[in-house]
Formats: sequence, structure tokens, C-alpha cells
Amino acid sequence: MKDEFTAEEKKGLYKAIQSRRDVRSHFTSRPIKDEVLSRILNAAHHAPSVGFSQPWNFILIKDPQTKSKVKESFEKERKRSSKLVEEPKKSKYLSFKLEGILESPINLCVTYDPSKFGPFVIGRSTIPKAGLYSVCCAIQNLWLAARTENIGVGWVSILSNKILKEILELPNHVIPVAYLCLGVVNEFSSKPDLEKEGWLPRLELRDVIYFEKWGKKENLTWRNIQDFITTNLDYP
Amino acid sequence: MKDEFTAEEKKGLYKAIQSRRDVRSHFTSRPIKDEVLSRILNAAHHAPSVGFSQPWNFILIKDPQTKSKVKESFEKERKRSSKLVEEPKKSKYLSFKLEGILESPINLCVTYDPSKFGPFVIGRSTIPKAGLYSVCCAIQNLWLAARTENIGVGWVSILSNKILKEILELPNHVIPVAYLCLGVVNEFSSKPDLEKEGWLPRLELRDVIYFEKWGKKENLTWRNIQDFITTNLDYP
Repeated sequence: MKDEFTAEEKKGLYKAIQSRRDVRSHFTSRPIKDEVLSRILNAAHHAPSVGFSQPWNFILIKDPQTKSKVKESFEKERKRSSKLVEEPKKSKYLSFKLEGILESPINLCVTYDPSKFGPFVIGRSTIPKAGLYSVCCAIQNLWLAARTENIGVGWVSILSNKILKEILELPNHVIPVAYLCLGVVNEFSSKPDLEKEGWLPRLELRDVIYFEKWGKKENLTWRNIQDFITTNLDYP
Repeated sequence: MKDEFTAEEKKGLYKAIQSRRDVRSHFTSRPIKDEVLSRILNAAHHAPSVGFSQPWNFILIKDPQTKSKVKESFEKERKRSSKLVEEPKKSKYLSFKLEGILESPINLCVTYDPSKFGPFVIGRSTIPKAGLYSVCCAIQNLWLAARTENIGVGWVSILSNKILKEILELPNHVIPVAYLCLGVVNEFSSKPDLEKEGWLPRLELRDVIYFEKWGKKENLTWRNIQDFITTNLDYP
């Protein structure tokens, strides 16, 4: 495939990346079209996977009983984890809206099944977690595709995986990786909620890049890029 | 941000997802422009992260000595893992080209630092692996952005992380998540190498989707989407 990307196609990719948000509210009552949902699931299914093992499954959920049980687990875990943080951060943490389980029309559990095409999967015998990594790449594909379709996606990571496995009847060997809330939204926040609320700042790009070895922020052979990573970052 | 995506922008996102490949060969000698490299690193840095912890670092590598040491670890681990698989799969496995460490102009190690903004990170106290998941989302962002820039990316997962930590001088608490090979390529394979070689087939989308509970492939309330996930999948 030699297909070059046009400037606008390229812009679409970068725009999706820059404007994707973790959505916890503002879900509208408009249903997600089956066609659109299929398309974003297909995007997820085209993620890279270690040894081409495609170890993901997607459980689509709209049963209100299931959602209520999951929400209950969220409430319990949120309370429990709030004990790990001191005031004034504790109250701030408890004031955040961190999930949209009931408000979003569709919940989606993305799972990892290590038994798929196993036991020998190329690349997984040296790095056993590589299968989990593949599932995360699928989630990010779905998230970006959803953004271009005006579907908000929120990842609920305050949950008991043990309870989730019971609720969704997962076999023992299957690992729930993500519990996502999906719904049509009218707009996406200009910044991540936790950045806007002043919980944590966005790091500068130059703060997360090292040269040749851990911790090395200066290197003569990388001098030119050192200038670039402080400027010129967004796709024109 | 209300910005809708134009049809072409949307197509750009889906095209990147569908045509992204794990690249092990065909790297050209053309250098990656600093501007382009910065842009794809910035795309990675705009991934979602649990509690906005941004727990990733990117170590850029071009030192031939470092590359040689990493390649050595690959060779050793490949040999070791080939003992886990029987003939005729063993010979087939050993015939595959599974890395481009020396041929690609730039190697990139993406790491996870659990200590960043810690110890309390929202959402990570209930699901400790969530930090690792964030790093994987960053990798997928980078991979897709690279695709639109005609940069091939190959993930080497046949490696000893212990050796890698020594080579790159990672602190004990930092986990290497991915070792990537990056370079300008002229074309991308129409299918993943392992699919083309007949190692494993691509699963059908309908084979990875369940309704409401694990293992349920039929559900009256999801009937319409059951038709869709067998057809109409690619973005027009």
C-alpha cells in the first residue's frame, strides 16, 4: 500500500488525537447508530497484537440491571480509595464526576483472553504482559474512531475487577481490561477535566523525552530535535 | 470543542488504523525529519492517562552500540523461545523477520514510571495496571501518527526486559513497555506479515463481540448490530 495521506486526512488523525477526551458527562439521549458502533468496534479489532493473537473481546452492555451493579462497585471503590488521600485533595477527588455508567446508552467491557491461539504466541513468551498491551492498543483505536464520530468514551477505572468478572460471567482466565461508557455527545471539552480542574498540570513534551539513556535530557547528536520539542508541535 | 470532522478527516483516521503495520523491514536510508519525529512524539504525549498521570517517558536511541546490545538480547530470546514450539512451526517461526533494530535509523524505548505524580493517582488504586494501560495508549497514538507520515514502526517484543533496563540505565521502579524501531518506508504491506505468511488468520469481527455477558453471541435487543458486524465495516 503506497497510499500517501492527503493533508486533510493527516489533519484528521492529529485532530482526533488532540481533541479526544475522557468523557464522563454531557451524554445526549440520541442513540448510537448500529453502523457507527460497528465501525468503531472494527477499528478496535484492527489494532496491532502480539504474534497476531487478537486476544480481545468486546462485551456490549445496555441492560440497566448490569449497569446498576457496576455503578454500585464504582461507588464502593471510590469511597474506599478516597481514604488513601488527605484533605483538601480528598474532598476535591470526591467532588469529581468520574463515570457516566448510567447516563451513557452503551457500556462496553474490553477483555483479554490469554488462551486465544495459545499457548505459544510469538513475542509473548519473553514479555507475558504483551497480550494485555495489545488490548490497550485496541481500546485506543476505538477511542479515536469514536471521537471522529462524535461519540464520547469514558474509561471507568475505579471498579473492582473481581466484581466485574462476576457480573459479566467472565471465565477465570479472562481479564477485564477496560470498562467504557459510550454515548453521543454535543461537544468535547477543550482540555482534559483533571487539567481544567487544576488537579494536575500537563507536562511539557520535553519533560518526557530522554536521549540514548534514562534521564539524559541533553545530547549533542540530538541537538536539533531539542529545539523542535519545545515548539512547532501541532499539525498545521 | 464542537469541531465536527469532515469526511476526509474522518477517512484519514480510519485509513491510518486500517493500513498501520508492524514494520520489520523495508526501512529506507532517508532520515526521519526532526519536525516529524517531534510531531509523532507529541501525538503519543496526548494519549489518555489514568488520573492524568502521564506516566510515560520516551528514550530516543541511535547509538549503534546500544542497538547492537539490544539486538543481541533479541537473538538470545528468540532462540530460547523457539524451544517452546514444535516443528514444523518452529522452523517457520525462526524464518520470520521479527525486528529491524539495526536497519531502522531510530529506536525508541517507551517506559512506564509509576512514581510520577504518585503515590495517589486517581483510578490506579483499584486497578494498579491502569498506569501501564495509559502507556500503551500512547504507543498506539504514536504508531498511527507515524503511519500518516510514512514512518514505519515495529514493536520488538522478543527481548529481555532485564537486559534492556541495564542497557538503558532505567531506575529499578521504571518498566520498559515497548522497544520500537522507526524509519521512513516506501510502502506498507497490504496485510500484517503473520497473516500473509499463514501463521494465524484474522478473526471475523463477529467472533470477538459478545452481548451483555461473556460468550453470548445472540441477543434480541442487539439484533440490528448483529447484521452490521458482518458487513459494511470499512469507512466509505
